[in-house]
Amino acid sequence: VPLIVAFDEPVEAELAARLCGIVDGIKVGLPAVIRGGLEWAREVSRAAGSCEGLRILDLKLADIGHVMRLSVEPFIGYYDGFIAHSFVGGEGSLDELKSYLDHHGARLVLVASMSHPGSRDVYDRALDFIMEVIERVDPWGIVAPATRPSIIGRLRARFASKKILSPGVGAQGARPGYALRAGADYEIVGRAITGASDPLAAAKSIIEAQEEVVRGGVEEDG
Amino acid sequence: VPLIVAFDEPVEAELAARLCGIVDGIKVGLPAVIRGGLEWAREVSRAAGSCEGLRILDLKLADIGHVMRLSVEPFIGYYDGFIAHSFVGGEGSLDELKSYLDHHGARLVLVASMSHPGSRDVYDRALDFIMEVIERVDPWGIVAPATRPSIIGRLRARFASKKILSPGVGAQGARPGYALRAGADYEIVGRAITGASDPLAAAKSIIEAQEEVVRGGVEEDG
Repeated sequence: VPLIVAFDEPVEAELAARLCGIVDGIKVGLPAVIRGGLEWAREVSRAAGSCEGLRILDLKLADIGHVMRLSVEPFIGYYDGFIAHSFVGGEGSLDELKSYLDHHGARLVLVASMSHPGSRDVYDRALDFIMEVIERVDPWGIVAPATRPSIIGRLRARFASKKILSPGVGAQGARPGYALRAGADYEIVGRAITGASDPLAAAKSIIEAQEEVVRGGVEEDG
Repeated sequence: VPLIVAFDEPVEAELAARLCGIVDGIKVGLPAVIRGGLEWAREVSRAAGSCEGLRILDLKLADIGHVMRLSVEPFIGYYDGFIAHSFVGGEGSLDELKSYLDHHGARLVLVASMSHPGSRDVYDRALDFIMEVIERVDPWGIVAPATRPSIIGRLRARFASKKILSPGVGAQGARPGYALRAGADYEIVGRAITGASDPLAAAKSIIEAQEEVVRGGVEEDG
């Protein structure tokens, strides 16, 4: 099931175990790590480890190599994938992070564009340069917004074999399934699941909606 | 004294108090917060609070507004300034962070360019768009690299009244004083001070070097 659940607040770590077998992975965000602490983040990883799902740490890294390495080091062995911004470029930054993660058998995921309107101010205007960075740094995955399927399409056309992860589904306005249809491999949903009174039921209903759109049962209306 | 000390690892919180009166402030980075934890970061803030220096939290924020607000909230009242990346743009992101910080009497500092060579891949090529974002979001301060004084000069020319903070001095190669001469208000030094056997002596010798360059006693050789 191409659904990843974002934990941006320190929810009960056990939720990661309960979501096992229902969704394809979890993504833990910076504010959750700050508030829950390092031990909480490791507990979530252990809970999620009861299945084969992805465990992604989303610190939105965007610094020089030295600082990014220091930031991810405590999570090596606990998380499989680490999200950084392509915007910071290669030499002295993402190149170093990539080697470090390769060395530890972990995956790099690079943000190519974001889900909010302000992404148009700079990020989307620089998309050609961003794609050059992605080409050169060669991450396992790319983050591209469900809110702008045309960007997903451009990235899918250029990077056939990379995984595309799409946030922006749910609270941010994109409906389930449309990013997948545009070429994404996973849709990321946060608050619509973690904030629901029954998160598992919420996840299941999003999965149903995804399946209906992917199967073509729902026509695009915009 | 226009020197800010960067804590990128969880050094003894007491060092912040010992630096009081010697330097102009401290900047606590993401890896230090992750490893030291929230309580350590608050302890550093209290230690630094024994003088009037700046207390800046450098999470290199680069996310949607909702996530950035969740990330800074635990530090409100402890830190005076918060660093975010300008490349994420305004609407739905920096606009929301700026209002939130304004409301809590805290300052926003936006990265305009970075100190490593990879900053040329995307960041520096997008400098015109970046400057538009800075113009519109209107932060208190700007981060620009000591390693590339010409960029400091361009930012100083366009943003006469904003504070310019320059990292990249010391371990990253820029020598003390040259960013100040190019228009920066503060130089940021990390490892060359926090990693020294006598951090206070290291800080004092950097300050002397700054003063000599600013007074014009040292000629640029490159």
